[in-house]
Amino acid sequence: MSTELPHTQQGIRRRNLSLVMHTVAAQGPLSRAAVAGRIGLTRAAVSTLVDELIRAELLVELGPERPGTAQATGSAQPRPGTAQATGSSQPHGSARTVGRPGNALTIGERGPVGLGAEIGVDRLAVCAVDLHGKVRAGAVLESDHRDSAPDPVLKELTRLVRQVTATVRGAGLKPAGLAVAVPGLVARDSHTVVRAPNLGWSDIDLGPHLLDALDGLPLSVDNEANLGALAELWIGGDPAPQDFVHVSAEIGIGAAVVVGGRLLRGTHGFAGELGHVPVRPEGPPCRCGGRGCLEQYAGEEAVLRAAGLTPGEGRIGLLSALAADGDQRVRKALRGAGSALGIALAGAVNLLDPQTVVLGGALSKLAPWLLPSLERELGRRTADPERPGGGTVSVSRLGSQGPLLGAAHSVVQAVLDDPSAAPWNR
Amino acid sequence: MSTELPHTQQGIRRRNLSLVMHTVAAQGPLSRAAVAGRIGLTRAAVSTLVDELIRAELLVELGPERPGTAQATGSAQPRPGTAQATGSSQPHGSARTVGRPGNALTIGERGPVGLGAEIGVDRLAVCAVDLHGKVRAGAVLESDHRDSAPDPVLKELTRLVRQVTATVRGAGLKPAGLAVAVPGLVARDSHTVVRAPNLGWSDIDLGPHLLDALDGLPLSVDNEANLGALAELWIGGDPAPQDFVHVSAEIGIGAAVVVGGRLLRGTHGFAGELGHVPVRPEGPPCRCGGRGCLEQYAGEEAVLRAAGLTPGEGRIGLLSALAADGDQRVRKALRGAGSALGIALAGAVNLLDPQTVVLGGALSKLAPWLLPSLERELGRRTADPERPGGGTVSVSRLGSQGPLLGAAHSVVQAVLDDPSAAPWNR
Repeated sequence: MSTELPHTQQGIRRRNLSLVMHTVAAQGPLSRAAVAGRIGLTRAAVSTLVDELIRAELLVELGPERPGTAQATGSAQPRPGTAQATGSSQPHGSARTVGRPGNALTIGERGPVGLGAEIGVDRLAVCAVDLHGKVRAGAVLESDHRDSAPDPVLKELTRLVRQVTATVRGAGLKPAGLAVAVPGLVARDSHTVVRAPNLGWSDIDLGPHLLDALDGLPLSVDNEANLGALAELWIGGDPAPQDFVHVSAEIGIGAAVVVGGRLLRGTHGFAGELGHVPVRPEGPPCRCGGRGCLEQYAGEEAVLRAAGLTPGEGRIGLLSALAADGDQRVRKALRGAGSALGIALAGAVNLLDPQTVVLGGALSKLAPWLLPSLERELGRRTADPERPGGGTVSVSRLGSQGPLLGAAHSVVQAVLDDPSAAPWNR
Repeated sequence: MSTELPHTQQGIRRRNLSLVMHTVAAQGPLSRAAVAGRIGLTRAAVSTLVDELIRAELLVELGPERPGTAQATGSAQPRPGTAQATGSSQPHGSARTVGRPGNALTIGERGPVGLGAEIGVDRLAVCAVDLHGKVRAGAVLESDHRDSAPDPVLKELTRLVRQVTATVRGAGLKPAGLAVAVPGLVARDSHTVVRAPNLGWSDIDLGPHLLDALDGLPLSVDNEANLGALAELWIGGDPAPQDFVHVSAEIGIGAAVVVGGRLLRGTHGFAGELGHVPVRPEGPPCRCGGRGCLEQYAGEEAVLRAAGLTPGEGRIGLLSALAADGDQRVRKALRGAGSALGIALAGAVNLLDPQTVVLGGALSKLAPWLLPSLERELGRRTADPERPGGGTVSVSRLGSQGPLLGAAHSVVQAVLDDPSAAPWNR
């Protein structure tokens, strides 16, 4: 039994507002009656909720679905702009006159947007996504952030955030918060990057740099693998898988586990460290203190070394270009990395029994050369005929955009989950 | 967003009845006012719920907590036995006269009990647990079920179920359902044991044997590792961990993952197969089709072989007896098994970031000889100073009783989660 479920009138109202918003965002335009049917509430109750959402400019009414179908049962026709639902206790007959029935509801074009940002190894990016899920503005800056000083990078990112904020405000949209994807560990419920080895950062608090540009809007910071996985869950498929392991990589190997449509964060916020799953227990020592971790076989540095390239000389983009060109040494290195990924993922699949494994982020670019050996190892270790269904692998169609989109969508989801919080009006 | 949350009046009422039951079961005896304070509802609303639970004989009122403190605000004192709450819409003043305020509520001594059963490798067991969590009756039969014919075993189990049912009914208790723990894979939401290798069973439906003895009561069948983990969650600790990996073993190695207080079952119901996590990818072939699975190093057969015993000649009970006697070969075999467990669990801890790992079931008996090498391997592979907190191991205090108690408690939890379902009255 979880005690976080609503059992007060206010909690139920908040939850029902969220149900209406999610339903219209996913399936709109919809009439009030259609929304009521889908969420199992009365027309009268839905009208009260909808009126509140229209006043908050989260929903708008399109013209009548079928002109002339609105039927008033009282003597007075509702006057546009003055109709007000007064509560869910109204008798059904009078409730039908409220809010011009038959008019289709949709998400407002000028409502809130979620801001997402990404601090990548070789780029900074910011985008704004509206409640429809449409990208409304963006800015990208290519630059190398390996072993970078945090201050100038964060100053540059703040400038991009201000730029995108100004653009969307100019279009009448209202930023509702910013989420930042970073290639590293983030302490749970904090703005602090505990360690981002490819950036060379440790214990960097993003708050002081970014909060000023946000003018009171909420800021969140999360690991890029987590946000990539959430993007997969929210916009990656149709239908999106609800139970999967999402694997991505820059220098290390990051993964995220989604169970029952929820990201598994772990007790300390450090779940998903697939890179430190032992592949060969007596293998080369790893920076984590262990030996033979997956990172020693499939991390960028290990793959570059196996391909005869010196780390620093190349990176994942180069690897995919060389592999596409037919470079046999690179292809062999990627086959080895695929095998190691398959072994580590076999452990994960046996433990978690997910619907699928998704290769996302930078790994999606390397998929053509990783997949054959990965699927071979994973397949033979999860092919027990009495435990069918394990071991399917797919490649994210979001590719390396996943974490950035996941960041922006996490703000959108927060708006849909609690539309009455309205941080953009504070 | 989950759509399983209640948003109808009936759903909310059912949920609030459950909140009252859980609160009184965990913290009772409690007055109505104390229950109201703990769950955040009004006294009047709680009184309505409590009256319904008293009528259903799930709660009883003890005598007044402090005689003379009940204060009626109307002119008529409530007459014992006739006081009836009429709804949550009563004004607060009159609600205070309802149900003899000040009387402490507790779980009835003659209410429902959960029946649990275990089909073990070397025993059958049945027990009945009341809503307090107290074992009220039990029956155990030692017998060897390796490579057994299912029919006679299930006939014997049915006899034990009838015997315990008769005992508790004689004491005025009402069985509310039966859950059966089996050492094998169970298809999700079915009564079918897909495969129980130590019993030599496959595709055995327990329904036809047991449903007749249950007279319409609900039956559930689950893997013993799952039920052992649930027992840990419900009654294993104070406070019980909410995020942990529970490892147990008979012939194979079973595990169960609990995340946020919920058992992770997996897409096909096959999560927790720690026994097939690769430990040495080029190791000995495993019956699952893989190589070097944990089971090849820490499964009973592998440990017996490493100890110089032939499988069939001994079993886990013998191993612990020999190890306790100082048998060096057995101790060395258990050290090896502990190392392999530590390697496989290092992967699980990196992936899931649990609070703790719990050794339960038969493994708890072997803990003294497994733990040193297990903790050494797990520790050095999860000791990253920037990801602290991983890798603590504890031994279940429920020991090999975990699965049986977990089975009975799963029925108790079902009663507390939806007290109005009342299958014992149907």
